[in-house]
Formats: sequence, C-alpha cells, structure tokens
Amino acid sequence: MKANVIFTPENLDELSFSGKTTVVIDVLRATTTIINALNNGAKEIIPVASVEFAVKVSGGMFGGLTLLGGERNTKKIEGFAMGNSPQEYTPENVNGKSIILYTTNGTKALVKAKFSKNLFAASFSNLSAVAEHLSSLNQDIEILCAGRNHSFSLEDSICAGKMITEIIKFKEGLELTDTAKACIILSKSFGRNLLKMLMETEHGKLLIENGFEDDIKFCSKINNINSIPAFNGNVIKLLVKE
Amino acid sequence: MKANVIFTPENLDELSFSGKTTVVIDVLRATTTIINALNNGAKEIIPVASVEFAVKVSGGMFGGLTLLGGERNTKKIEGFAMGNSPQEYTPENVNGKSIILYTTNGTKALVKAKFSKNLFAASFSNLSAVAEHLSSLNQDIEILCAGRNHSFSLEDSICAGKMITEIIKFKEGLELTDTAKACIILSKSFGRNLLKMLMETEHGKLLIENGFEDDIKFCSKINNINSIPAFNGNVIKLLVKE
Repeated sequence: MKANVIFTPENLDELSFSGKTTVVIDVLRATTTIINALNNGAKEIIPVASVEFAVKVSGGMFGGLTLLGGERNTKKIEGFAMGNSPQEYTPENVNGKSIILYTTNGTKALVKAKFSKNLFAASFSNLSAVAEHLSSLNQDIEILCAGRNHSFSLEDSICAGKMITEIIKFKEGLELTDTAKACIILSKSFGRNLLKMLMETEHGKLLIENGFEDDIKFCSKINNINSIPAFNGNVIKLLVKE
Repeated sequence: MKANVIFTPENLDELSFSGKTTVVIDVLRATTTIINALNNGAKEIIPVASVEFAVKVSGGMFGGLTLLGGERNTKKIEGFAMGNSPQEYTPENVNGKSIILYTTNGTKALVKAKFSKNLFAASFSNLSAVAEHLSSLNQDIEILCAGRNHSFSLEDSICAGKMITEIIKFKEGLELTDTAKACIILSKSFGRNLLKMLMETEHGKLLIENGFEDDIKFCSKINNINSIPAFNGNVIKLLVKE
C-alpha cells in the first residue's frame, strides 16, 4: 500500500486517475463546504468545472430542488443562490437539495479525478474518518490537492500530511512517495495551530481581505464531522458504509 | 525584498519571467553539471529545450570547439559527446569548449526563464556564493526548481530552502511566499545529511538503478565551488563580478 500526494491537478490527464483511489483536498474552502453541506442534509453535490456548465446543468433540473453554489475570485457568482462559505450551507438552506457547485480550484480537481475507482472529498473537518476508511480499503492512495492558481497550496499539503500520518497509524508499512514525505514534514511543522497557519497562508490572507475570516475559523476545525463525501456517477453523496 | 519558489516550470509562460531575478535549481544533475563544467574551463554552456534543437545548433558551429552533452531517461544521448554526469566535464574534456546541453528538466527550465533580467544556475555546490550574490542584488527572487516529470522535486526544494536560509542571514526582513516557507521547513528536516537524502529520493533511486551513484555523491557536496553561472544572450558563462 502506497500513498502519493499530487500538489495540483493542472498537468494531469483525467484518464491518469482511472482505477485509482483518490482523495481531493481543498481546505479553503470547497471540500470543507461539500462536507458540511452533505452533513447538513443536502441530497447531493454536483461538482462542475465551469460556470457555464453549472448554469447549463441547472437549466435541466427542477426549480426549488436545485441550488447553484460557488465562487469566482473568492466571491459568490452573480445569480447563484450561495457562495463558497461552508456556513451558508445550513440545514435550512440545503436539506434535500441537489447543489451544483463551481469553485476555482476544488470542484475542478474533483471533475479531473472523476474516473477514479474510489473518489472522496476531505478537509480538516473529516480527516480521521477519511483516513480510517482509506486504511480499510487497502488500496494505493492518491491525495489530490486542489492547489491554488495552478500551483502548490500550503494548507492542502498540510492537510494531506496529517491524513497520511493518520493512515500510518493503521498501516505501519505504508510506502511513501517524495511528495507524501514532504507533506508529513510540513504538517508536523505547521500543523500545530491550524487557525494560525490558515490565517497566515496566501489564500487565508486573501479570504480575510475579502471578509471571509469566519470561513477560515470554520475550516480550521478538525474532525468535527465524521461524514465522507463520495463521488459516484457524477454526483457526490455521503458514503454509506456497508 | 521577497523570495518565491516555483516547484516546476511546467505551467508558466516564458514572459512571466520578464524583468525578474531568477535562479534555476536542478540538483540531480543539470545545474551541478553546468557549474562544474564552467568551473573546469568550459567557455560557455548553451542550454536547449529539445534534442533536435541541440543537433541543429551544433551543426552551425565549429567542429572541435563545440561539444554536445546531455541525457534522456538519465542516459547519454546517442551521438552526443557527453552525458549529464558532472564528473565527465573535466578540464581535459571541456577547457575552452562551447557545450550545447540538453537535459530532461534542467535545461528546459533555464530556457523557460530566459527572459529574466538576471538568471543564474545553482545547486548545492555553489549555494552560498549564489545566496550572497542575490543578497547584494537586492531584488525580489524567483527560485525555479526544474522539478521532475512536470512535478515537484524534493531535492530541488530542499536546495531552494537552504538557499533562502542563507539569504536571510544577509536580509533579515526577507518576505517569504508559502512555497518559500515550505522549502525552509523541508531543508531543515531533510537537509542534515544531503547524501542520504539524495540517495532516498525517487530521482536518486532511479540514478542508482542506472549506475550513477557516483554522480549523487558529487551532487551532495556543498559549497565546493564558488562560481556562479549566469545566463546572458542565450549562453551561460561564469559571472564576472564588477
């Protein structure tokens, strides 16, 4: 069993994920939003890779049962019901709804990895639940960081490092690639105070500038949600364990 | 003054380097080879981004004074005088010669960054010399890791982290991007025993498999050469300080 971390989906072909077990991480904020929305009763999340496709998909769905959510340049997209703040996705807002979600990095990463055999969404909020489930699957793991601006994201890498550290507790001989080793070291160094770390990253600073400091606080919580979002047939639903 | 690290040149446009001060790092082995070749008396290095272009350029040059060097899949290219082992570039082999060099990652990164205002090549061998020179320039710094297979290279990142740590000795208030911070942490954790670290990286293992263990030993030496290769008008020569 082997763990690898990919710092950005940018250069990978969709087909490279065929048959793989993949976890997408976008701490700030897409995967945290997805986890919270499903945990609060959303029926499903439909991640899309463009705003145009989000609007197109929503046109063919029943009004009232479908919501458009997402951001561009950190802010809610005009005409969309919700932005990308996890806390907007309350039980009152999302219960029973299908949510079409577009975000700059996170949903693109999920769409890129759609041919994976197993595809999950993770963040600090469901870290241990995902780690335990991955250990039970006993398959090689690709942790795909959504990254930022087609590049490295410190917060996603730290989350990946923490997840691998958790998996090692169950799988002592876990083989690690260079990126996996690097993420473990980064998580040990930066992972002690997640809120402080998130506030000091480039992405964190940008969110604070745009008035989303509360989102950072929400995204810094660890293991507050035990749910595992799983992608299947173009939609993400909570994993129902057998 | 600010320091940034780029983990791979893959997604960047050539023009994004316009006016910048850039350092290219490819520890295993291209920049170590370039530093050693110039230090051993080579007149100049002409980095190229394709084998075809290497052959084309060499056709227009005087025989005897020009050498073709480089690798594909770690090995010397058929018809080339030399591979990518730094130790092949002895004074006897290179003195007074123009060397056209093609390597999988390193020379491509140099060519990608060619529009930089200042462009240098660094590795562990000339780390402190380059750090001191960059400090004296007092410009924002882009450290471009050549990476591996269009992705992250642990050894290049560690070298970048060590270089930034050196620069901070001269420039206390140096501003750091997220990647720069990550590299410093990686260099502190992995940088104590460079030979061991290099032997255990994915790239190191591949080189050992292909019989290049001596190259790794050579590339693990730190500050054994004080020369700074500088790119100017499509060729790399040793920097002559004013």
